[in-house]
Amino acid sequence: MSAEFDRLSAAVREIAEEMKARPDRGSVADYIPELAHVDPGRFGLCAVDAEGRVAAGGDADAPFSIQSISKVFTLTLALGMAGDRLWRRVGREPSGSAFNSIVQLEHERGVPRNPFINAGAIAVTDLILSGHQPREALGEILRFVRFLADDETIRIDEAVAASEQRTGFRNAALANYMRSFGVVTNPIEFTLGVYFHHCAIAMSCRQLAMAGRFLAHGGRHPATGHAVVSPQRARRINALMLTCGHYDGSGEFAFRVGLPGKSGVGGGVLAIVPGRASLAVWSPGLDPSGNSHLGREALEMLSRRMGWSIFG
Amino acid sequence: MSAEFDRLSAAVREIAEEMKARPDRGSVADYIPELAHVDPGRFGLCAVDAEGRVAAGGDADAPFSIQSISKVFTLTLALGMAGDRLWRRVGREPSGSAFNSIVQLEHERGVPRNPFINAGAIAVTDLILSGHQPREALGEILRFVRFLADDETIRIDEAVAASEQRTGFRNAALANYMRSFGVVTNPIEFTLGVYFHHCAIAMSCRQLAMAGRFLAHGGRHPATGHAVVSPQRARRINALMLTCGHYDGSGEFAFRVGLPGKSGVGGGVLAIVPGRASLAVWSPGLDPSGNSHLGREALEMLSRRMGWSIFG
Amino acid sequence: MSAEFDRLSAAVREIAEEMKARPDRGSVADYIPELAHVDPGRFGLCAVDAEGRVAAGGDADAPFSIQSISKVFTLTLALGMAGDRLWRRVGREPSGSAFNSIVQLEHERGVPRNPFINAGAIAVTDLILSGHQPREALGEILRFVRFLADDETIRIDEAVAASEQRTGFRNAALANYMRSFGVVTNPIEFTLGVYFHHCAIAMSCRQLAMAGRFLAHGGRHPATGHAVVSPQRARRINALMLTCGHYDGSGEFAFRVGLPGKSGVGGGVLAIVPGRASLAVWSPGLDPSGNSHLGREALEMLSRRMGWSIFG
Amino acid sequence: MSAEFDRLSAAVREIAEEMKARPDRGSVADYIPELAHVDPGRFGLCAVDAEGRVAAGGDADAPFSIQSISKVFTLTLALGMAGDRLWRRVGREPSGSAFNSIVQLEHERGVPRNPFINAGAIAVTDLILSGHQPREALGEILRFVRFLADDETIRIDEAVAASEQRTGFRNAALANYMRSFGVVTNPIEFTLGVYFHHCAIAMSCRQLAMAGRFLAHGGRHPATGHAVVSPQRARRINALMLTCGHYDGSGEFAFRVGLPGKSGVGGGVLAIVPGRASLAVWSPGLDPSGNSHLGREALEMLSRRMGWSIFG
Repeated sequence: MSAEFDRLSAAVREIAEEMKARPDRGSVADYIPELAHVDPGRFGLCAVDAEGRVAAGGDADAPFSIQSISKVFTLTLALGMAGDRLWRRVGREPSGSAFNSIVQLEHERGVPRNPFINAGAIAVTDLILSGHQPREALGEILRFVRFLADDETIRIDEAVAASEQRTGFRNAALANYMRSFGVVTNPIEFTLGVYFHHCAIAMSCRQLAMAGRFLAHGGRHPATGHAVVSPQRARRINALMLTCGHYDGSGEFAFRVGLPGKSGVGGGVLAIVPGRASLAVWSPGLDPSGNSHLGREALEMLSRRMGWSIFG
Repeated sequence: MSAEFDRLSAAVREIAEEMKARPDRGSVADYIPELAHVDPGRFGLCAVDAEGRVAAGGDADAPFSIQSISKVFTLTLALGMAGDRLWRRVGREPSGSAFNSIVQLEHERGVPRNPFINAGAIAVTDLILSGHQPREALGEILRFVRFLADDETIRIDEAVAASEQRTGFRNAALANYMRSFGVVTNPIEFTLGVYFHHCAIAMSCRQLAMAGRFLAHGGRHPATGHAVVSPQRARRINALMLTCGHYDGSGEFAFRVGLPGKSGVGGGVLAIVPGRASLAVWSPGLDPSGNSHLGREALEMLSRRMGWSIFG
Repeated sequence: MSAEFDRLSAAVREIAEEMKARPDRGSVADYIPELAHVDPGRFGLCAVDAEGRVAAGGDADAPFSIQSISKVFTLTLALGMAGDRLWRRVGREPSGSAFNSIVQLEHERGVPRNPFINAGAIAVTDLILSGHQPREALGEILRFVRFLADDETIRIDEAVAASEQRTGFRNAALANYMRSFGVVTNPIEFTLGVYFHHCAIAMSCRQLAMAGRFLAHGGRHPATGHAVVSPQRARRINALMLTCGHYDGSGEFAFRVGLPGKSGVGGGVLAIVPGRASLAVWSPGLDPSGNSHLGREALEMLSRRMGWSIFG
Repeated sequence: MSAEFDRLSAAVREIAEEMKARPDRGSVADYIPELAHVDPGRFGLCAVDAEGRVAAGGDADAPFSIQSISKVFTLTLALGMAGDRLWRRVGREPSGSAFNSIVQLEHERGVPRNPFINAGAIAVTDLILSGHQPREALGEILRFVRFLADDETIRIDEAVAASEQRTGFRNAALANYMRSFGVVTNPIEFTLGVYFHHCAIAMSCRQLAMAGRFLAHGGRHPATGHAVVSPQRARRINALMLTCGHYDGSGEFAFRVGLPGKSGVGGGVLAIVPGRASLAVWSPGLDPSGNSHLGREALEMLSRRMGWSIFG
C-alpha cells in the first residue's frame, strides 16, 4: 500500500513536470473576459488516496475558477434537498451537443438533458434557490463545498462572477427559455446570479481533490467522517459524471481515461477512482469541446500508470 | 468465493422467476416483421463468473435474435483488422438521438457518432467487408462469434435476415447517405446484406454470456485461453458500451445498472462486470428508447443484490 | 370601376356575415394572458381601393392587438434609417420553423432568417432603438404608424404590453441569444420593451387597411400624398410578406390566397393587392401555425371572388 | 405593344451580351460528374410574350440539362393524375434548408416540405410511376414536356442520367427514407430511375420558355391552344415556384427578381411573368444555394428594365 502511494507520488510529480513543458496547451476560454487573462502555462495535479495521503505536483496549490466542476456539488446538494423530484426538471442522458446548446431544449420542451450541461445546471441551481434569497442559496452552496473540502478558506472570485454576469447572454437565453416552459421558476436574475457565483468558486487542485473524496468512498467523506450521500447516490453521481461530465467530449474521456470526471472551462477536471482516490488537475488551455486539453492527457497518463480504470 | 457463486445462483433464479410473472413487459419490436411474432412472455438470464461457473434462470437456453448486440463483436473484429484507422470513419461520442436517426449524419458530414448506433455499425460492417465478398465477411463474423462463445452451433436466422432485408429502408437510407460522403465504400447491397445477417445471429443468454467473457477479463477469454484483444482495448470497448450501448437510454442504464452493456431490439442485453462476470438477459418487450424493459430491470436488481457497479 | 367597388362592397359584407356564423374558429392565443380574454366570435374585414373607397364588414372598426403585423411597419422604418445595412443583421429567407423557434439561430450564428419571425423583428427593433431611449424609439414607431394610417387616435394597449413583458420569456431567450452573437446590441430590457410595446399597438381593420395602402401603390401613400418608400422597396417588402409573412404557414397562404400578407397572433392579417387595394381582416382564433384561421379563409374567398392574385 | 416587344428584344440581347462578358460566374455543379464538364462561359436568355413573339440572346438555342426545372412539369402532370391527393404525400411550405437535406424528413415523418426540393420531387415522381413500368412513366413525362414546348425534338441526355444513377447516393438515401414511412411506395430503383431520367431532359432556353407559357396565361397554352390546367391550378403552381422554387434561396429570388421561378443545378431558370411572358435563362455557374448565379442577375435586370414584378 505504501508502495502504491510511492508510485502515485512519483507519477503525479513526473506527469506534472512533463506537462509543464508541453508546447501544445489548447486555448484559454475567452468568452468569459476575466478568465482570458489566466496564464496558459500553469499546470497542477493532485491525488488523495483512501487513507487521505496527498500526492501533489506543479501548481497544485494555486486557486483557479472551478466553473462547471461546481455542478457536481450543486447536483449533490439539490439531490439532498429534492431527492428524485429533481429528475422531473432535468434528464440523465448525454446531450450529443455543445455545453451551451439551446437546440435540444426546443426539441424536448425546455427540459435539459442532464445536470452537467449549462442548461441543466441552471435548472438545478433554480431548484436550490427556490423559496430562498440568492444570498442564502449561495451561502449554502459555499458552506457545502467548504465542508466537503474541509477548508474554510475557499472563496468566490467576485471579479469572475461579475464578468460572467456582464457577458453571460447565452446562459440568460437558456434560463429564459426554460422559464418559458416552467422548468426554471425563480426570477431569472436571481437564478443566474447564484449560478454565475457558484461557477466562480476558486479552488486549488488540492482543495478540489479533497472535496471529491466522498464520491470515491461510497458517499462517505473520510476527511470529515460524515456520510454525505448514500452509497447508491454516490455511484449514480459518478455514473452521470462518466456519461455527461465532459459535454460533447464525454465519450472520449471515458474511452481514454476510463474514470468518472467533470471538467470546467477554467481548465480544471475532477476525476474519481472508486474505492481508491480522488483526483484533480488544472491546465487552462481547452480543446474544441471546452475541456482541459492537457488535463485529460495527464489523467490518461496517470490512470494508465496506476492501472486505474473502472472498465477492467 | 463459492459462497458468492451461491448468492449469484440464487439471485439469478429468483429474479428470473419474478420477471416471468411481471405484467408490464414493454412492446415487442414490430418494425422487423419476423421479430414481431416473438412471445413477449419469454425471459432468460445468465451469468458466467471468473471461474467459468454458470448461473442460469428462465429461458436462458432459448435462442433469440441478438440484433445490435452483434455490434460489440463486429467492432472488436474491425478494431483487430483496422486498428485506430477505424476511428476515421466513426466517432466515440453518445449520439443524443434515436438508434436510427439520420439528422446527426447531415450535421457531421456522414460520420456516425459511435459504432453502436445503426449508422456507425453499418460503417464498421463496411470496413470489415472491404475487399471481400459478402459471404466471406459474414463467415468471418460468424466464426468469430462462435470462437468467443466456444460454441459451433450458433447460427444465423435467415428468416430474420430476409425480413430485415425486405423492410430495412431506414438502414438503406443511412448506408446511401454515408456512401455519398465516402464513409461507406462498398456496394450498398453488399454492406447491408452483411449487416442484416450479423444482426440476425441467434444466441441464447448462455451463449451470449460466454461470448462476452473476454470483456470482463482484460481481453483474455478464460473459456478458450486466448487473448482476444489487449487489456486496453477491452477497457475501451467497455467504455463505449457504457456511454453508447443503449442508444438514447445509455445514460439511464449507466445511472441505474452501473455496468457497461449493449442492448438489441430483439430484447437481449449483454452486460459486463469487469473482473467478475459476464451477464446476458433476454426479455422481448422494449421501452421507448428501444431497449429491453425488463432486461434492464433485471440487471438493475442483480447488480444491486451482488453489489456490482463500476461506480463504487 | 364603380361597378368593381360595388362588387367589392358586396363581397366584403357577405363574407363578414358568413364568417360571423362559422362554428370552426380556431383557438385564441393563450400564451399572452391578456390576449386570451378576447371574444373568439369577433370578425372584421375591410378593403380600401386605389381611389380610397372603403368597404367594411363585421367588426371592422373594433381595435385589436396587431402584434406581429407591426413588424411590417418597423421593417419599413428601419430600412429608411439603415438602408441595406439592415440585411447584415437579418436574412431574407423563409425559416421553415415556428415563429418563436431558436434552433435556427444556433445553426446560423445568431442571425435570424427574416424580419418577420420573432427573432428577426427583435433584431430590427434593436436597430431602430440604437442610440435612442426606448421611449423615443417607441414614439417614433407610433408616429409612423399614425402617419401611415392618417389617424392620430391609434394607441398602444399598455395592458397587453405589460402582459407580454411579464411572460415573454421565449422572446427574452431569443434576444439574449442574439446579444451573445452581437446581433442585438442594446440592453435586452430596452430592446424587448420597445418590441413588446409596438406589438401591443391596437388598430381596427379600417385603420390597418389604411396604413397598408403605401404597399399597394408603389410606396406612395394615396391618403397622405407622401412617398413613404421607393417603388422598389415597396415591392421588396411585399416579396418578404409573401415568402415569410405567415411563419411556417407562408407557403399555404401564398398557395391559397395568392397575395402578400402579414399575420399577427392577435388574429389580424394585413394583405396587399398590388395596384388595387389594401385589405385587413380580424378573427382571433388561430390555426396551428399561429395564423388567423378564418382570416385566411376570408381572404381566400375575397381574392377568388374579386379575381385578385399576384400569380395570374 | 410592338414597342414593348422591341424594348424586350433589346433588353434580352443587351443583357445576354453583358452576361457573356462577366468574370464572376459561380461554380459549375460538380457532384454530378457529367455536368462538371459544361463550359461555364455559356449564357442564354429567351422570353416569349403573350402573342408568342420570341426574344432570344446568347446561347438561347443550346440545349442544357434542365435538372430540377423538370419538377415543375412533373408536379403539373401529377396534379392532373392525382389532384389534391398529391398533398397527402408532400407539403407546400418552404423548407428552410438545402435542396438535398434529410433532416426535415426525420422531424416530419418522411413527408417532404414541398414538391421542389429533391425529396418532394422524388415523392411526386413515385406518384406518377404508381402502377406503371418506369419506361411508360418516363415516356409520359417526356411526351408532356414535348407537348408543352410544342417540340418533338426534346430528348433525354442518357449520359447525364447514367451519371446521376451511378452517384446519386443522397437521393437514394432520401428515397429509402421516405419508403420507410410509406411516402414512396414503388421499388426504389424504379422511382429513382424515372427521377434521374426526367432531371436529365435537355432543353434550350427557347424550348423551356415555350414550355412554361401555360403558367403565364392562366393554364392555357397559347402555342398549342390547349387548356393544360385550370387557371386556379396555374396560379397555385406559380405560388409554389415563388415560395419554394429556389431551395434555400427562394426568399432572395422573390426579393430581387419578384417573379415565380424554378432553378436547376444545370444552371437553368424558368420564370413566369403572369399575363405577360415566359422567361428562360441559362448560365451554368451556381451560387452557394445551388441556383444559377448570373441567371438570377440577368432576370433581376430584365424584370427591372421591363417593370415586371408581381409585387407592384
